Amino acid sequence: MSAPLRVGLIGLGTVGQAVLRVLARNGDEIARRCGRRVVVTHAAMRDPHRVRDCDLAGITVGTDPHAVAGADVDAVVELIGGISPARELILAALGRGRAVVTANKALLAEHGNQISQAARAAGAHLAYEAAVGGGIPIIKVLREGLAANSIDSLAGIINGTSNYILTQMAARGQSFADALADAQKLGYAEADPTFDVEGVDAAHKLAILASIAFGVPLNFAAVAREGIGQVTPQDIQLAQELGYCIKPLGLAKRSAEGIQMWVHPTLVPAAHPLARTDGALNAIRVHGDAVGQIVCAGRGAGGEATASAVIADLVDVARMQGAAPRHLVPDLGFQPGALRELPVVPAGNVASAYYLRLRVADEPGVLRAITSILAELDISIEAILQKEPREHEDATLAIITSEIADARARGALERMQALPFVRPGASRLRVEHFE
Amino acid sequence: MSAPLRVGLIGLGTVGQAVLRVLARNGDEIARRCGRRVVVTHAAMRDPHRVRDCDLAGITVGTDPHAVAGADVDAVVELIGGISPARELILAALGRGRAVVTANKALLAEHGNQISQAARAAGAHLAYEAAVGGGIPIIKVLREGLAANSIDSLAGIINGTSNYILTQMAARGQSFADALADAQKLGYAEADPTFDVEGVDAAHKLAILASIAFGVPLNFAAVAREGIGQVTPQDIQLAQELGYCIKPLGLAKRSAEGIQMWVHPTLVPAAHPLARTDGALNAIRVHGDAVGQIVCAGRGAGGEATASAVIADLVDVARMQGAAPRHLVPDLGFQPGALRELPVVPAGNVASAYYLRLRVADEPGVLRAITSILAELDISIEAILQKEPREHEDATLAIITSEIADARARGALERMQALPFVRPGASRLRVEHFE
Repeated sequence: MSAPLRVGLIGLGTVGQAVLRVLARNGDEIARRCGRRVVVTHAAMRDPHRVRDCDLAGITVGTDPHAVAGADVDAVVELIGGISPARELILAALGRGRAVVTANKALLAEHGNQISQAARAAGAHLAYEAAVGGGIPIIKVLREGLAANSIDSLAGIINGTSNYILTQMAARGQSFADALADAQKLGYAEADPTFDVEGVDAAHKLAILASIAFGVPLNFAAVAREGIGQVTPQDIQLAQELGYCIKPLGLAKRSAEGIQMWVHPTLVPAAHPLARTDGALNAIRVHGDAVGQIVCAGRGAGGEATASAVIADLVDVARMQGAAPRHLVPDLGFQPGALRELPVVPAGNVASAYYLRLRVADEPGVLRAITSILAELDISIEAILQKEPREHEDATLAIITSEIADARARGALERMQALPFVRPGASRLRVEHFE
Repeated sequence: MSAPLRVGLIGLGTVGQAVLRVLARNGDEIARRCGRRVVVTHAAMRDPHRVRDCDLAGITVGTDPHAVAGADVDAVVELIGGISPARELILAALGRGRAVVTANKALLAEHGNQISQAARAAGAHLAYEAAVGGGIPIIKVLREGLAANSIDSLAGIINGTSNYILTQMAARGQSFADALADAQKLGYAEADPTFDVEGVDAAHKLAILASIAFGVPLNFAAVAREGIGQVTPQDIQLAQELGYCIKPLGLAKRSAEGIQMWVHPTLVPAAHPLARTDGALNAIRVHGDAVGQIVCAGRGAGGEATASAVIADLVDVARMQGAAPRHLVPDLGFQPGALRELPVVPAGNVASAYYLRLRVADEPGVLRAITSILAELDISIEAILQKEPREHEDATLAIITSEIADARARGALERMQALPFVRPGASRLRVEHFE
């Protein structure tokens, strides 16, 4: 057997400790797969006394991450997250020709073009399976497994926290605020939940997936976002009656007009596998011209699921060490010179079916006035649901439109809200049929 | 860009023609991914006049497959299926150092150990993503994406024909014979459907998946099979009322006792993603100790879906050509010397929950007699359903047992069938909870 792959680990939190635990438990079997042992020789963390569930014997442990990035190792694993000092550490390791494995989606989404270029310049291996979808090997599936396809769209539930919250709201009829508070108590949501519930984390991941699916440079800034805080228990209930589940969806599409990327709470047909991806699970649907629809689902977070992805990358690194760079899978899926900018469809032009929900006075002529607006704007109604109001209460009206540009959906809703008998507080959500 | 990868294609049926079509359509994008063009230069088929939907310009087309196996190409793609002459052609190509890509699950399951050894001896690249799961890149997911895991079980709907038939039976209340006849008319089933409905095709695929999941040599002979012809519309109905769908399941498990592999019609919880895999779709569930449960679903057959897998292999071949063999992913997932035989759990010892269905006379004391047998044999009843009989008809009784060894389930059923008021024609199906 060849010499072990020597690994430096930066960050020994939940994922870092899980990496050590899985390597200890499955080290023999991993060596049977890749022909070498994968051995962590150096590690850095803020407080080495916090490590509990794993054995640090034989590992040089310190508090200085730069010492690990510069250590005599074959590969550096970055698990501290955030932009700085992660970026400097990764660039330093790549600059020394080390392979780098990272789970840092924020860094890749925002600075991945630069990091990819640095890896290329150094002829170094850069891998990041753990950055998207936790243990689901979606990066490998997209870059290699579906390499024959022209991929026209991908969509996923790629943030477990927001999926957990919407699932709890649906199961218990809870408000967003209550479900969020429960999720925080249970450790499913951070004290500051912005990154998750506002779609920033999902947008990071979507930018990465879109780049490797379409062969475009990373463009996080072009991902449109809407948070899940706008979804009410009533929306979830109405959506169900119309045959949909509301899911925190990230979607990227390529068409003749260019690419669109967005993260929105979205109505998904109840029978689709994504609608049935509940709790903290992740699922990604890819549509390619040859393969059709592929759906991969699994744990999107958690120490060992993420460690599964980190170690899969290390196995690739171990196998490829010493091979000429042309034999490596290009880190963004396409050859370095072959990434091509595509126009981004302007937000107002992005077409989708829409769910519109209004509170209206219980008066004659209301439905006629609203449907007249839609008819004048040439918007077809695919489904409509008016719930019988309790006495002296307002009625609720939910409409699923045909596919229309975002700007037209906004315009239609604005005109409806200007009607005298329409109350404030309407809702407008996208509907995705995956056709 | 490097020189094109020159491919010889043996077999120009549905899949072969789809390979040519997808390469023509996506050739530019594929080259952007792998840095080389993938070009079919030679092809063989029985009757070249039958090719319709693809362009043969620039391809040397003949009727002799041996000429392609021996042609001056970089890779040979075998798409004729069957054992002979596929085996001889593949061994000849490998012997000349050519990379070989095949979709031939029967050949791999039955002679894969020999073929893998020949590839190793020649230092040649052997790839077979298309052999299991059509366009789903399950081989790559298992061999590479989940390489960190000790995989304890995998289960899948890996034969589209039998899944289509059971889905139609459930949707229409059809008998097996009627659903099979319809499937044959629509081209979903062969004139001789044995391979599909008796589980032979699924057993071939399961043997391959089990080998790369557990690191054991291929052992097709150890896969137990039961066909779907035993399933009645009534079983499907009763299973539904008990919260299950009946699916054509292939399952492989590793435990302290050894490995078990079987292909059976099986009751699957209605909420599980595999239960919702309908029609000709395939889905595979893998459980690893680090990653937990991963499910991948998609088209398991069809020209372009299968071509997607064949071309993904060709992209790997194109990228790795010229690299030292140690850089290749070992074809059976584990290093050549690291495959290890594991004992096969004897059929009678394989433990499972069971669904037992009986027709019984509508008499007092029947339920007591049957439940007494189960109590005497120390078998717990997890669920029981007795349907009210129409007047003068027999009653139907369905029982879900706790997990018991196969031999005990058979024994219990035999004792029940010996009771005077139990009619002939009972049913015994496995129940899999994926826990």
